[in-house]
Amino acid sequence: MKTALIKILPLFLGGFLFAQPKADSIQFKNISDEILVNSTAYENLRDLTKNIGHRLSGSAAYEKATDWAVQKLKEAGADKVWKEEVMVPVWERGKESLQIKTENGTWKPLNMLSLGNSEGTKGKDVEAEIIFVKNREDFDKLPESQVKGKIVFFNYAFNQKFINTGQAYVDAGIYRRSAASWAGKKGAKAVMIRSLSSAFDDVPHTGAMRYDKDDTAKIPIVAIGAKSAEELEKALKTQKIFAKLNSNCTMKGEKLSHSVIGEITGNKDQSVIVVSGHLDSWDVGEGAHDDGAGIVQSIEVLRTFKKLGIKNNHTIRVVCFANEENGVRGGNQYAENIQKKNEKHIFAIESDGGGFTPRGIALVMSPEKKKEVQSWRNLFLPYGVYHFEYEYAGTDIEPMKKLGVPLAELVPDSQRYFDIHHTSEDTFEKVNRRELLLGAVAMGQLIWMVDENW
Amino acid sequence: MKTALIKILPLFLGGFLFAQPKADSIQFKNISDEILVNSTAYENLRDLTKNIGHRLSGSAAYEKATDWAVQKLKEAGADKVWKEEVMVPVWERGKESLQIKTENGTWKPLNMLSLGNSEGTKGKDVEAEIIFVKNREDFDKLPESQVKGKIVFFNYAFNQKFINTGQAYVDAGIYRRSAASWAGKKGAKAVMIRSLSSAFDDVPHTGAMRYDKDDTAKIPIVAIGAKSAEELEKALKTQKIFAKLNSNCTMKGEKLSHSVIGEITGNKDQSVIVVSGHLDSWDVGEGAHDDGAGIVQSIEVLRTFKKLGIKNNHTIRVVCFANEENGVRGGNQYAENIQKKNEKHIFAIESDGGGFTPRGIALVMSPEKKKEVQSWRNLFLPYGVYHFEYEYAGTDIEPMKKLGVPLAELVPDSQRYFDIHHTSEDTFEKVNRRELLLGAVAMGQLIWMVDENW
Repeated sequence: MKTALIKILPLFLGGFLFAQPKADSIQFKNISDEILVNSTAYENLRDLTKNIGHRLSGSAAYEKATDWAVQKLKEAGADKVWKEEVMVPVWERGKESLQIKTENGTWKPLNMLSLGNSEGTKGKDVEAEIIFVKNREDFDKLPESQVKGKIVFFNYAFNQKFINTGQAYVDAGIYRRSAASWAGKKGAKAVMIRSLSSAFDDVPHTGAMRYDKDDTAKIPIVAIGAKSAEELEKALKTQKIFAKLNSNCTMKGEKLSHSVIGEITGNKDQSVIVVSGHLDSWDVGEGAHDDGAGIVQSIEVLRTFKKLGIKNNHTIRVVCFANEENGVRGGNQYAENIQKKNEKHIFAIESDGGGFTPRGIALVMSPEKKKEVQSWRNLFLPYGVYHFEYEYAGTDIEPMKKLGVPLAELVPDSQRYFDIHHTSEDTFEKVNRRELLLGAVAMGQLIWMVDENW
Repeated sequence: MKTALIKILPLFLGGFLFAQPKADSIQFKNISDEILVNSTAYENLRDLTKNIGHRLSGSAAYEKATDWAVQKLKEAGADKVWKEEVMVPVWERGKESLQIKTENGTWKPLNMLSLGNSEGTKGKDVEAEIIFVKNREDFDKLPESQVKGKIVFFNYAFNQKFINTGQAYVDAGIYRRSAASWAGKKGAKAVMIRSLSSAFDDVPHTGAMRYDKDDTAKIPIVAIGAKSAEELEKALKTQKIFAKLNSNCTMKGEKLSHSVIGEITGNKDQSVIVVSGHLDSWDVGEGAHDDGAGIVQSIEVLRTFKKLGIKNNHTIRVVCFANEENGVRGGNQYAENIQKKNEKHIFAIESDGGGFTPRGIALVMSPEKKKEVQSWRNLFLPYGVYHFEYEYAGTDIEPMKKLGVPLAELVPDSQRYFDIHHTSEDTFEKVNRRELLLGAVAMGQLIWMVDENW
């Protein structure tokens, strides 16, 4: 690309842009300039990921992260910072291994991760023939006699045809969540699934599974990389293959933990606007995109309001939720507490789709409110944020839906997220500074509009 | 992020979407599905970058790349493939080094790259005091006496406030292009500039410079990393600093080279639609985003039309241009040839902004044609392509503007491009498979519309 010939016109001179209040667009630019030039979010993320690293609920690292969040919220200029108590489940992985072999072959290790919340083999080898199915339909056709005593392998691939990879994730998600229950009910010894991954590599992805209440056997479930899954399916077409699983993962009850909250007090009233992410992560990688990004972006919004001297009408509150990944206890506790305290909330947004360039904001609110937010679209267009049609909200703020709080979630570009989501590869190096900051810009701008207009 | 709570509505049910012809949207999906599932573009890019690597005009690697392109166009199903002769300048870097020291200190090396087309020091040490200026305005104020015999250091930073980093690149580009001429005219010995980089690291970025016709002295110009530049500016505030440059880069005349062309013949007429990128790259890194991406995307469009059995009305021609980076000879020669042959061209698009998720398509054409393309916007929205308001076209197809050919350029997300543009970091690993493919999807879809309607 050469410089000389590039002519860039002001954005959207015609087409679907129409006039917007000048004062709003000036404030949008102030927020953007402040964040793109002076942000501390990227260095905060480096600090969180490199000096604390992954931080599963119940771990010592998570507790360290709560102290870190208190400190960062104070540095950002919060008027009040506190920890909110919440009981969280304690799940521990421990040592684990998975090997496969042909009938007369030797054991060969596979890259694997037990799924979160799964029971393990209590350190004993569990060995059985692998029975392969492509999907649930095929599995449902199998009689119990063909499943009993076997290790069931689901090779359901991520559907590359979806443009938004979140849709492929939802589509394949049922295998991660429920396959252990399906197979356990038919007497299987364990389950292997293909990782929920948009990349074709051999990196296993963990993530939450759950047992049904009526499960009599809680059988182990593990994920393997997409490449291993393809090779295994191919091999199974011509021969019997056996697997040997040894894992120590288990639930270890509950523990007192904390969400971390910081706010700048409203100048007009004490009703609350929430901007949030979740502080916990899975126990692999560094939890950089998921959801270190959402945490540092939320803190950045508070810092920016303070730095620009914006006289916020309502209280702007950053919530760093505990335990999104395997329980959503932080989110549930928060909704319960505000109900008890009768604390009025006028809006909540979460960033939990990774620190990628923002493309839009998903909305869960009344049709009238939604229409109002969509009427602000043209203010956002110069910042590459154009899409306000998705209808979903952050997992941690969802529990506020029943309280009638208008909810939203930042919608970043989805193409790279599920390459590294819930893996050892979700590291600081995978986050681009400007992409991360633009997410904070979009949230800051939206909160400014909400604070002004609601 | 959990799966259970995500509800994704069909895109743009309301708002700025209105009905589009059903047949078009079906063909859009066919093209998208074919590319996202069966594309060879990503593996082609791996092959080009890993087995050939960087490929500056005039180098042996570039000639190897032309054979590679012929082969890949044949594999993709082109009806005709040929090489088009073009004379290209031969610029060679050779060994180079830059050191700095304080008056009584010792020499310390800096990461550096000579700019493309620059003359070097003919292997001799050129040593002088560094004189620092922030920008052109400051430089213009300096009398000749203060510049003469010095090495001028311009520390003009990439402006982070622009949302589209291409604007920051244009803004800072004049220093790369012209600073050697400004300083040469005042008798300086050499010029150092801060790299045109959106990242704050110590990776130097090369790129084309040019001497003015009236330059009596062609003085060397080199780029240093943004971090080194900041440190150097700081150090210069308190002390004198000297630089020692030794470089061998020089122009070595011209050489016969080739652009590579492949096409599928039109079924209705022989008028031509061009889809293109440039095959050459700078002599560092692997030329992955710039512009291996554009090359494999263009070939992918041809492969997809062939694979889907689309009966194209017009000839669809892939052009892999020679010498974009330091001469645009391929593009100029192509425009000259089609004029000579009186070959009617109805449309040309280039992809030369990196293999990132597409956001739009820039248009250079009559207001009527532009309006027509913009009226197709809603077909593109489900693919994340929404922006048709930029007015620029690929450097290599620009020479066709004077022939009245409607031109376009793919507009990928710009956030990461100038972190790695023209550096050792522009490697295959920096390209995401799905992002790359979606660029090919958008170009294929647009070409389908043009082929049907023009």
